Amino acid sequence: MHLQQQLQQKINNKTKPPGALGLLETIALQTGLIQQTLTPQIKKPTIVVFAADHGIAADGKVNPYPQAVTAQMVLNFVQGGAAINVFCKQNNIELLVADAGVNIVFNSGTPITHAKVAMGTADYSKQPAMTLEQTAQAIEKGAAIVEAIFNSGCNCIGFGEMGIGNTSSAALIMHYYTQLPLAQCVGRGTGANDAQLANKLQVLEQAATLHQLINNNYSAETVLSKIGGFEIAMMAGAFVKAWQLNMILVVDGFITTAALLNAKQLLQQQQADANILTHCIFAHCSGEQGHEKMLQHLQATPLLQLGLRLGEGTGAALAMPLLQAATAFLNEMASFESAGISNKE
Amino acid sequence: MHLQQQLQQKINNKTKPPGALGLLETIALQTGLIQQTLTPQIKKPTIVVFAADHGIAADGKVNPYPQAVTAQMVLNFVQGGAAINVFCKQNNIELLVADAGVNIVFNSGTPITHAKVAMGTADYSKQPAMTLEQTAQAIEKGAAIVEAIFNSGCNCIGFGEMGIGNTSSAALIMHYYTQLPLAQCVGRGTGANDAQLANKLQVLEQAATLHQLINNNYSAETVLSKIGGFEIAMMAGAFVKAWQLNMILVVDGFITTAALLNAKQLLQQQQADANILTHCIFAHCSGEQGHEKMLQHLQATPLLQLGLRLGEGTGAALAMPLLQAATAFLNEMASFESAGISNKE
Repeated sequence: MHLQQQLQQKINNKTKPPGALGLLETIALQTGLIQQTLTPQIKKPTIVVFAADHGIAADGKVNPYPQAVTAQMVLNFVQGGAAINVFCKQNNIELLVADAGVNIVFNSGTPITHAKVAMGTADYSKQPAMTLEQTAQAIEKGAAIVEAIFNSGCNCIGFGEMGIGNTSSAALIMHYYTQLPLAQCVGRGTGANDAQLANKLQVLEQAATLHQLINNNYSAETVLSKIGGFEIAMMAGAFVKAWQLNMILVVDGFITTAALLNAKQLLQQQQADANILTHCIFAHCSGEQGHEKMLQHLQATPLLQLGLRLGEGTGAALAMPLLQAATAFLNEMASFESAGISNKE
Repeated sequence: MHLQQQLQQKINNKTKPPGALGLLETIALQTGLIQQTLTPQIKKPTIVVFAADHGIAADGKVNPYPQAVTAQMVLNFVQGGAAINVFCKQNNIELLVADAGVNIVFNSGTPITHAKVAMGTADYSKQPAMTLEQTAQAIEKGAAIVEAIFNSGCNCIGFGEMGIGNTSSAALIMHYYTQLPLAQCVGRGTGANDAQLANKLQVLEQAATLHQLINNNYSAETVLSKIGGFEIAMMAGAFVKAWQLNMILVVDGFITTAALLNAKQLLQQQQADANILTHCIFAHCSGEQGHEKMLQHLQATPLLQLGLRLGEGTGAALAMPLLQAATAFLNEMASFESAGISNKE
């Protein structure tokens, strides 16, 4: 009997009607298949928040909050004051913050992962966001960060991000990979009003035209260099490496899923029959309007639908107890036989 | 400034865009209002599983699993082998199991709460399920159980149930309170196939006619005596007492919500302007088909949608970390001022 059948039989023999634990049964099966065992374990769950600035956000044309907030929020993470700090502490999740390209120089003693590629991207409404060399550097740094975390004993990782303006980059990436109209990809981000949203869409329409995002066939690196962000490129590299290390990938919201679209493509460029989605658990559906369609594009079923639209990996952190519940029921519940319980007549 | 405004201001001043924590913000506000404080706390969260047998289930006409499973599952709870055990252990929730009316005599040393009203209800397809005296007894015992838990320091309680056949009772209760067609209230329970479902519906149509559930104006006690179960009546009494003790009520699935419909009515009979829903947090939307419509009837927004249909309070247990997250962000996150972060321009 194949492992998949054995896992399904183990799940069905637990003291509950078949299927009665819903999506948790799906997760139990998936984690067992990832780890190739009947007793999957989640070890040292970790979230990395990648932070970077975006050239397009420097003058506020797509973002209600000023660019300086990216750096301020990194310091908030360091001080433990952000939502992701609170949720990671509550759910016993390790939290790392990586500077992928924030537009200030952090003191080397600041307790973050120093992985800065540059002081923010260029403004992609006028030119490519980054060079191909910078793209490669970001991808490599993301991979190295994940490898170090894996070596510390973690087998389950989620990514979050902080970068004022990064819903714009994510919307363009979504537009490129899904080929959906840009208006379906662009949302209110941190809370654009109607006028700001209209302006954001106009600016991004121009960028989409400049970079010829429709009916083109770019490599993932090219997409990232044109319209990406350093945190997004670094996350893409991190996703690919985590898949290669056979880790469980907990996918957060809109920007993280945009990074995953690039990671999916990156991996397929390297290994045509590989599919990063085998290892992905989708934590939640964001309140950012494009996310639901992005998830549909990936045929992904999210665990949570709480109307979150904060980023930082908060959805991944809040979903982690559900992953723990899925492996716990598989490992700890009694079976009909062991508990001496009558099955269906 | 009223407490509600103060709470909203506190939530809005946290280092996140307004509304970005979605339903967690709603829960934070609600718990603050219940406890009348800017710093609500969840103390000693507890789940009580009420178990009882149903006369209608004795001959298998509405239930795929035999009636004996109710008692077998109570022993499974005692031994720690059920899903609710695993999830309570994982999420640091106290778990109590109460015998409301299981059709065996448990040894007095069995570590459960002994609150048996009788050895199961009568078959309500032929006669009332219980006498009004039994109904009153069940309600009182439920209240006493909650009072003891409250006195041990708990301020947040969820209820679960175990009772082969109890989706049938819940469907009839839903039919009475919502006046929706019975076919919209009756579902597959633990997994009825099409023929079993058709038969279940037919049996329950007859019971609904016998007890004149359409266009009638019964007291909650009368409804429970006609078509209830001891675990459902006890839960109804438990809900009312928990509301009176100002506890947070975490509402589980289909059967628990049916108990809540009775509790809502019970409370209003005692205190016309009181609404039990002020203290209710709806943990999840069950996969049992009637639950979604029951929640709509209550205008309730559930936290989780995982396709669970197990009962036992498993949805409540899985939602508890989200309640903890809601109070944690309110109490622990930095504000824009305290973290020195720029607000919207």
